[in-house]
Amino acid sequence: MPPSPLLLALDLTGTFAFGLNGALTAVRAVRLDLVGVLALGMMTALGGGIIRDVLIGSLPPATFSDLRYLGVAAGGALVAFFLSVELERFTKLITIFDAVGLGVFCVTGAHMTIEFGLGPVQAVLLGTVTAVGGGTLRDVAVRRVPSVLTSDFYAVPALVGAALTVLAMHLGIYGIASALVAAGVAVAIRLAGVRYRLRVPSTPRRRGEADPGRGEG
Amino acid sequence: MPPSPLLLALDLTGTFAFGLNGALTAVRAVRLDLVGVLALGMMTALGGGIIRDVLIGSLPPATFSDLRYLGVAAGGALVAFFLSVELERFTKLITIFDAVGLGVFCVTGAHMTIEFGLGPVQAVLLGTVTAVGGGTLRDVAVRRVPSVLTSDFYAVPALVGAALTVLAMHLGIYGIASALVAAGVAVAIRLAGVRYRLRVPSTPRRRGEADPGRGEG
Amino acid sequence: MPPSPLLLALDLTGTFAFGLNGALTAVRAVRLDLVGVLALGMMTALGGGIIRDVLIGSLPPATFSDLRYLGVAAGGALVAFFLSVELERFTKLITIFDAVGLGVFCVTGAHMTIEFGLGPVQAVLLGTVTAVGGGTLRDVAVRRVPSVLTSDFYAVPALVGAALTVLAMHLGIYGIASALVAAGVAVAIRLAGVRYRLRVPSTPRRRGEADPGRGEG
Repeated sequence: MPPSPLLLALDLTGTFAFGLNGALTAVRAVRLDLVGVLALGMMTALGGGIIRDVLIGSLPPATFSDLRYLGVAAGGALVAFFLSVELERFTKLITIFDAVGLGVFCVTGAHMTIEFGLGPVQAVLLGTVTAVGGGTLRDVAVRRVPSVLTSDFYAVPALVGAALTVLAMHLGIYGIASALVAAGVAVAIRLAGVRYRLRVPSTPRRRGEADPGRGEG
Repeated sequence: MPPSPLLLALDLTGTFAFGLNGALTAVRAVRLDLVGVLALGMMTALGGGIIRDVLIGSLPPATFSDLRYLGVAAGGALVAFFLSVELERFTKLITIFDAVGLGVFCVTGAHMTIEFGLGPVQAVLLGTVTAVGGGTLRDVAVRRVPSVLTSDFYAVPALVGAALTVLAMHLGIYGIASALVAAGVAVAIRLAGVRYRLRVPSTPRRRGEADPGRGEG
Repeated sequence: MPPSPLLLALDLTGTFAFGLNGALTAVRAVRLDLVGVLALGMMTALGGGIIRDVLIGSLPPATFSDLRYLGVAAGGALVAFFLSVELERFTKLITIFDAVGLGVFCVTGAHMTIEFGLGPVQAVLLGTVTAVGGGTLRDVAVRRVPSVLTSDFYAVPALVGAALTVLAMHLGIYGIASALVAAGVAVAIRLAGVRYRLRVPSTPRRRGEADPGRGEG
């Protein structure tokens, strides 16, 4: 089954954004050589989609049967490598690329899960896993606790974007417009979360520390 | 092929125990927010079964085709999140939940591997991988060296439980009773190992340090 | 489809070398007990091949359907465990075993990918993933940044070996001789890289630090 052009275009956009993000993370966090930067960029860009394809049983993953994914991921990583000095001036770019990858992949992950015949709950979950998977591999590789665990509002926007996608497919109104809206909402929530430091509830603190998220827990 | 009711009941029990354990680990080790606690709880609860299903080629994993797994894992994690203050008083609970998940999953992992037509050695190994897989993902995510590597008697009880399961199936006496015995033996060995600090042999120390496990190495 | 004898012999050689290497790493880095050493040795030995088989959709992985892999991996780990004191005198052995595993697995990984009907680019990439996969799991488990990211000339020899394999298959001259040449070239590049501290280009340093790889970036 060839993927729809919409799915492919979105997927490649997310792949490029995550390739850039992973490579910039590599340069900043560990200052790796060309091969290390390429490897971390491609792992970030392709990881989420690979996990999704393994879990829905679509093997070999699209990443390997379709060279465009490999090319776009490597391209994003190479751009980040060669322009790293310039890109470092724009400190927010790394966050924005991550948000774009997150927003796009939750939509394509949910879309593809439905296309493979799984149910709506599974699609929301796998859309989220697709979105956060690459970044999680990236964080583990450079020895950070994964964003999905520590960063408030990292999984939440992905869940919302995946849920909107599933809803639109269920209502029969899914298309370019609704896919872009779902991805856009996810990106907006993510960036708003970073900007305004939004938080989801935490467990009550033990020693009475102040905790903004306390009451709602 | 629908799983037998026994397999399902055991698997859900292990899923719930690991969901509780993973979420409590999250609260204790990193004090994550609700999403982070849910994510770590579900990763711990579902990780072992997912790895098993990927390796035997049963895709998509039961986790995704059967909503009960998702619900039970999330339920365990939510219970741990909302009761974390109360549960923290019972410091041994986290160890006990881990042991129960370990004991149950080594049985279901071995059982399912045999059902999929693989041999007894593979079943013992995959039973063990199922049992230790979720906890290993949990440990990597919170940046601990995995228990299966450092903790004496973490893999050993899983190996024993899986071996007993395979033996019972081979002898044609496998059923509720023998599954519970195999799981119980694994849990008992694990808890005895923690309680009495049992050790498997280590390599000889270099500078003549005392080492209880020395001679047998 | 039974693997060719050549593929099997090479694969088992790599499995043994990585089993030794992983177990020696365990003993040196964390001084684990017998179970931990076995687990890390087997993870290192079997990890790359498992990732490859999952990605090409050859499930269950050869590791589990063919007991020889399990036996050879465990054998390598046990040898390392029992001879660890003796082997520690030869500090270079750990590097050499790693290089041998790397060189052999990039050939078998590329070979198997082609046999499964994927294209040459995919074969080079998956050959490299097969070669570096086990070591990456090993490094993550003992909480090191993976060699593939930090070590200059870890992925490069694997890429070269995989590319030579694909080239030989394409030219119709692939056989024992060319497979050994491809593996040998990869091993030689890896060991030369370690010996002469060869480097691939890094991004320019920010504060004008000296950096041998600077100009070529």
